[in-house]
Amino acid sequence: MQLDIRDKLIRRLKEAGGYVSGEVLSEELGITRTAIWKHIRELRSEGYEIESSPGLGYRLAGVPRKMNARELAYDLGTTVIGKDIRYFESIDSTNSAAKKAAAEGCDEGTVIVADAQTAGRGRLGRSWNSAAGKGIWMSVVLRPEMAPEDVQLVTIAASVAVSRAIFSVTGIRTGIKWPNDIILDGKKVCGILTEMSTEIDRINYVVLGIGLNVSHGPADFPEEIRDKATSLMCHQGEGLNDADEKSARVRTALFREILRELENVYFMLGSNAKAVLDEWREWSVTLGRPLRAEIRGVEYKGTAVDITPEGRLVIKCSDGVIREVMSGEVSIRGVMGYV
Amino acid sequence: MQLDIRDKLIRRLKEAGGYVSGEVLSEELGITRTAIWKHIRELRSEGYEIESSPGLGYRLAGVPRKMNARELAYDLGTTVIGKDIRYFESIDSTNSAAKKAAAEGCDEGTVIVADAQTAGRGRLGRSWNSAAGKGIWMSVVLRPEMAPEDVQLVTIAASVAVSRAIFSVTGIRTGIKWPNDIILDGKKVCGILTEMSTEIDRINYVVLGIGLNVSHGPADFPEEIRDKATSLMCHQGEGLNDADEKSARVRTALFREILRELENVYFMLGSNAKAVLDEWREWSVTLGRPLRAEIRGVEYKGTAVDITPEGRLVIKCSDGVIREVMSGEVSIRGVMGYV
Repeated sequence: MQLDIRDKLIRRLKEAGGYVSGEVLSEELGITRTAIWKHIRELRSEGYEIESSPGLGYRLAGVPRKMNARELAYDLGTTVIGKDIRYFESIDSTNSAAKKAAAEGCDEGTVIVADAQTAGRGRLGRSWNSAAGKGIWMSVVLRPEMAPEDVQLVTIAASVAVSRAIFSVTGIRTGIKWPNDIILDGKKVCGILTEMSTEIDRINYVVLGIGLNVSHGPADFPEEIRDKATSLMCHQGEGLNDADEKSARVRTALFREILRELENVYFMLGSNAKAVLDEWREWSVTLGRPLRAEIRGVEYKGTAVDITPEGRLVIKCSDGVIREVMSGEVSIRGVMGYV
Repeated sequence: MQLDIRDKLIRRLKEAGGYVSGEVLSEELGITRTAIWKHIRELRSEGYEIESSPGLGYRLAGVPRKMNARELAYDLGTTVIGKDIRYFESIDSTNSAAKKAAAEGCDEGTVIVADAQTAGRGRLGRSWNSAAGKGIWMSVVLRPEMAPEDVQLVTIAASVAVSRAIFSVTGIRTGIKWPNDIILDGKKVCGILTEMSTEIDRINYVVLGIGLNVSHGPADFPEEIRDKATSLMCHQGEGLNDADEKSARVRTALFREILRELENVYFMLGSNAKAVLDEWREWSVTLGRPLRAEIRGVEYKGTAVDITPEGRLVIKCSDGVIREVMSGEVSIRGVMGYV
C-alpha cells in the first residue's frame, strides 16, 4: 500500500498523541505550511477530527465514525492481501464486484469491502443480511496455484484466519462448523462463501467472501433467523448503533486483523497445509459431534471423525460406513437450532 | 428465437424461390406495401441481394457475404441452445464476453459468436489464432445441474456434437483427442475450452468455447503451428478467401448445425450419459493409442484404455499401473506431431 501525504500526516499525528506544530509537519513532510493546512482541511472533510491551535499546531482528536478507506488500509503491513483495498459505502454484492475485478485482471489480494450490501449472498444463492454499519462485508481475490478440487483448503484457511482475528481483537473464542461457518453461542456469526473461476484443471481465480456480523443487537436480525444468527456485540450483550463511534472502530480493527491473519494462514497453506488443518481441528465444533448430512439428496446420520488433506469431511455414518463429503448440507447437533 | 418482420420476409422469399409480389407480401405480413419496401431496403443494407421488378415484385438473389446475425439465428429450431445469439464482427474473446453475460444472468443457451477474435484464448491461457472470416469462434453459456467435478462431461458432449455437425455439413470424419481437441489429418482442426464459475459444490455457469478452423489455406496459419493446425478447407484442398461467398455460407451452416447437435447431445447427457460416452469412444482417436501424459509435472508413457463415467482418461502406464487423469497434457502418437 502506497502511503499518500495525508496517510503520512495522520500517522504522524497518531504517533505524536498530542499537538505537532505546522512547522515541524511542514519540514518532515517536505511541503509548505499552507499545503499542510489544505491537507488537514481535506482530512477533516473525510471525518477526521483535527484540532488546531495557533500556538501548538495540530492534534488528532478522533477518526471518522464510519468505515473509511484510509483507516482500513493504513499501515496494514501485509505484502499481498489488502495491497489494493476498494471500499464502498454501499454495493450490490462484494463477491460480484470481486469476481468482476478478478475477471478484469486485478492483483491477487485485492479486497472489496462495503459498509452495506444491497444484494449480499450466501451459499447456494441464498441471501445474506448485510445491513449498513452492522458487519464486515468483504471479498478477497486470490489466485492460488492449486488444482480446482483442492480449493476447499482455501475456505479452511480463511475460517482459521477469521477465528484468529476475532479472538485477537475481541477475546471471543468462536468455533468452526464445516465447511464455511463461524459459530458463536450455537449460532452463526460469520459465513464464508468461496467462489471460483476455473478451466478443467486450472484455477483462474478464487473469490473469498466473508460476512461477519459485528454490531447487531438481537432485534437487528429478521425474526426468522434470530434463533440461528448472532453477532459479536450480541454476545457481549450490547448492539451498537450505526452512528456509534465504537462500531466503525471495532469493524475496522477486525477487518485489518482478518487481512493480516488471512495472509499468514494463506501463506502457511503453501508451506505447511498440515499445520492449517491441525489448527482447523482445534477451532472445530464439528469433529466428534453427532450430525446429519445431506449428500446429493440422500440423508445420513453419523459423527464427523476428521477432515481429509483436501478438506473433505469424514463421517462415520450410523450404518457403519465411513463417507467423505465435499460439501452439501451438514447439521451439527447443538448448532444453529439442530437438536 | 422471436422472428421479426424482416425474418419473416426473408423466410417467405426463401420459400418462394422466385418472385413474390409486394401485394401478396403486404397481405400475408399484415403491413402496407410502403412498409414492405422499407424493410426490403433495410435488408439490402444488411447485405441481402433482393431484386425487384415492377411487374413481379421481389426476389431473393443472395444472402450476405459475411456472417450475419439474421442468417445465424434464422429458423434454428432449437429450444435452449441459441435462443439468444449475439454476433460481433470483432471481439476480444468470445469466452470472456460469454462469462460476462453469464455473470449478468443471461439465459442458458446464450451464444456469443464473432467473425474475428483479437485476443482468442485456448487452454491454460494460450493464445488461439482467430483471424477474421476463417473460422467459427463461439462460446455457449450453459447452466448444467451437475457437480463441478463432473463438468468434463460437458466438454465430452460438446466434442461429440461438433464432430457430428462437421460430418453432417461437410461429410468430413474427424477424430476426438482427449480431452478437448478435434483432429483432422493428424492436426488440430477445432479446440474446445471449458471454463466455469462455481461454488464448492455448485456450478454457477459453464462457458463452452469452440474454435473451429474452417476457411484457412495452409499459408493462413502462422508458420510455427502449420504442422499442428489445419482447417476443413485445407483438408478439401482449397483455402477460402474472406470475401468468398462460400466461406460465410459454410461457416453459417456449421455454426447452426453445431448448435442443433449441441442441444441434442447436451440433453442426452441428462437422460443417458452412457450413450454420449459410447459415441465419444467411437469418435475417439485416443483410446488404444500409445501416448505420453504429463500429470502434475510427472511424465508417464502408456496406452489409453477407456474414459470413466466422469470423463477421466484411463491410462495403462508402461509400469503396469492403471492411472486416471482429469486433464493435464496428453500427447497421442501420430497426432499433432508426436511420433
